[in-house]
Amino acid sequence: MKTKELVRLAHSFADPYCVTNGRKFRLKDMKPGDTGSLRAKDKDKAKQALELGIQTLADLQDKLYAQDNWGVLLIFQAMDAAGKDSAIKHVMSGINPQGCEVASFKAPSAEELDHDFLWRCQRHLPERGRIGIFNRSYYEEVLVVRVHEGLLAKQKIPKRLVDKRIWKNRFEDIAAFERYLHRNGILVRKFFLHVSHKEQKKRFLERLERPDKHWKFSATDARERQYWKDYMAAYEDMIRHTATKDSPWYVVPADSKWFTRIVVAAAVIDALASLKLRYPEVGREKMKELAAAKRELLAEK
Amino acid sequence: MKTKELVRLAHSFADPYCVTNGRKFRLKDMKPGDTGSLRAKDKDKAKQALELGIQTLADLQDKLYAQDNWGVLLIFQAMDAAGKDSAIKHVMSGINPQGCEVASFKAPSAEELDHDFLWRCQRHLPERGRIGIFNRSYYEEVLVVRVHEGLLAKQKIPKRLVDKRIWKNRFEDIAAFERYLHRNGILVRKFFLHVSHKEQKKRFLERLERPDKHWKFSATDARERQYWKDYMAAYEDMIRHTATKDSPWYVVPADSKWFTRIVVAAAVIDALASLKLRYPEVGREKMKELAAAKRELLAEK
Repeated sequence: MKTKELVRLAHSFADPYCVTNGRKFRLKDMKPGDTGSLRAKDKDKAKQALELGIQTLADLQDKLYAQDNWGVLLIFQAMDAAGKDSAIKHVMSGINPQGCEVASFKAPSAEELDHDFLWRCQRHLPERGRIGIFNRSYYEEVLVVRVHEGLLAKQKIPKRLVDKRIWKNRFEDIAAFERYLHRNGILVRKFFLHVSHKEQKKRFLERLERPDKHWKFSATDARERQYWKDYMAAYEDMIRHTATKDSPWYVVPADSKWFTRIVVAAAVIDALASLKLRYPEVGREKMKELAAAKRELLAEK
Repeated sequence: MKTKELVRLAHSFADPYCVTNGRKFRLKDMKPGDTGSLRAKDKDKAKQALELGIQTLADLQDKLYAQDNWGVLLIFQAMDAAGKDSAIKHVMSGINPQGCEVASFKAPSAEELDHDFLWRCQRHLPERGRIGIFNRSYYEEVLVVRVHEGLLAKQKIPKRLVDKRIWKNRFEDIAAFERYLHRNGILVRKFFLHVSHKEQKKRFLERLERPDKHWKFSATDARERQYWKDYMAAYEDMIRHTATKDSPWYVVPADSKWFTRIVVAAAVIDALASLKLRYPEVGREKMKELAAAKRELLAEK
């Protein structure tokens, strides 16, 4: 398959899950079990397609790195066990690690809490020519912090600044920040891996049954299940306020991991292809230099 | 003099130079040689007043640090030799260095150029309870970079994003960033030290005549004098677009250094006083703890 065809195919896989205008978004319109035009029996074919996709991705990343103008920021948000880690691993492992950095954001440290909430993430923004991946991000500030408002108190924000407008203000601040990033050549793509309450339970139970998965299980994570509705409301509101043409959210069905990966890979290919990346052109002067270098090398005794 | 009186006095000194709504701002309305109600013969009295001011400042900073909710960011911008370094030195040297950090931004490094333009400054934002001072800042992006557009090319921003809207966009991005900082408890105050073309020449000549000042002179700085009009237009436009109620610009007359210092100190006092800082209240539990500790200490043999 030619690259052009592959890119077109990638677009067709990713586009149904892409929210570029949040205003009318409703989470209940999206099904965690959706697998598009594919069925479980297509799983192997899908895996082969993913392989092809990863090669395309690696080619695009090579150009991104050589051209050195755009940075790319991929943000992953999800409930636990939705498959963030495995999507990052499977989709991004074909690419050159020199051009890619993953930052995972856990509970903030005391030093981080002493700063404004974007601070810890801004430090990890990708350089030009590189892909930065945020495994969780500043969006936690309108998710877990919103569901557990006690966390807000820990942020030590002056009391007079904390009122009922805070979530709307945070959405506005985040949207302005991402608009700024876009204007400065950082392409932002955001992924909400949408897993169902039922599938999460199944995956938690698997973790409890497999010793090699025990390290991934935390009792706290399981207790968060009782806040599921609050979380879903927070995700929906977040997407409604921060999905834009330049910084869209992908609401990726996450009950079938093989399909999640296809959609994520397709979305990243689609994003990189939209940049019309090219290897930097070499001017006449540089060509002369190259020719001279070749002559010298050949003349060596 | 009581603190309350001093704070009122500080407000009266700073307020005439405070721009909280840039829309109608015109730089030519501000005189670099202005010394308010003071005359050159009041210089010694002014120095004493500054001493008092610095003590007040130190008290306020102590509370800022103890309360640990607000951060304060002071930004200094000016033409060379306008007295940024000396204002910082004289006004801030009375305060506890543990609660204060100065970051100087020179020409950006290769790593910094590889990021969005706010990146290098964001890393140095003050923690809660502290005063951060930016000696030059992201405002250079709409000053020197605007006057010398060649610098923009070095930033490696994708070409399709660089058009004539870039300065307006940068103003908008900076204003949004500062609004975000305010919402998150970082108080921003900005100082443009307004020196005249004539006074700058005099100070450059002084630097050339005094061996202890030679290190401060750079031929490049002097050559920038030919772009004076462009710089003034850029400063004016910057203030028009980024002076707001929450993040005002102080346009400080800078032809008389003693007056510059008075105004800067007054503005910082005014800003800190507006926060209504208090030492954290100690609850009943904590009081019991303190009493117990005292008993134990006294009972030691």
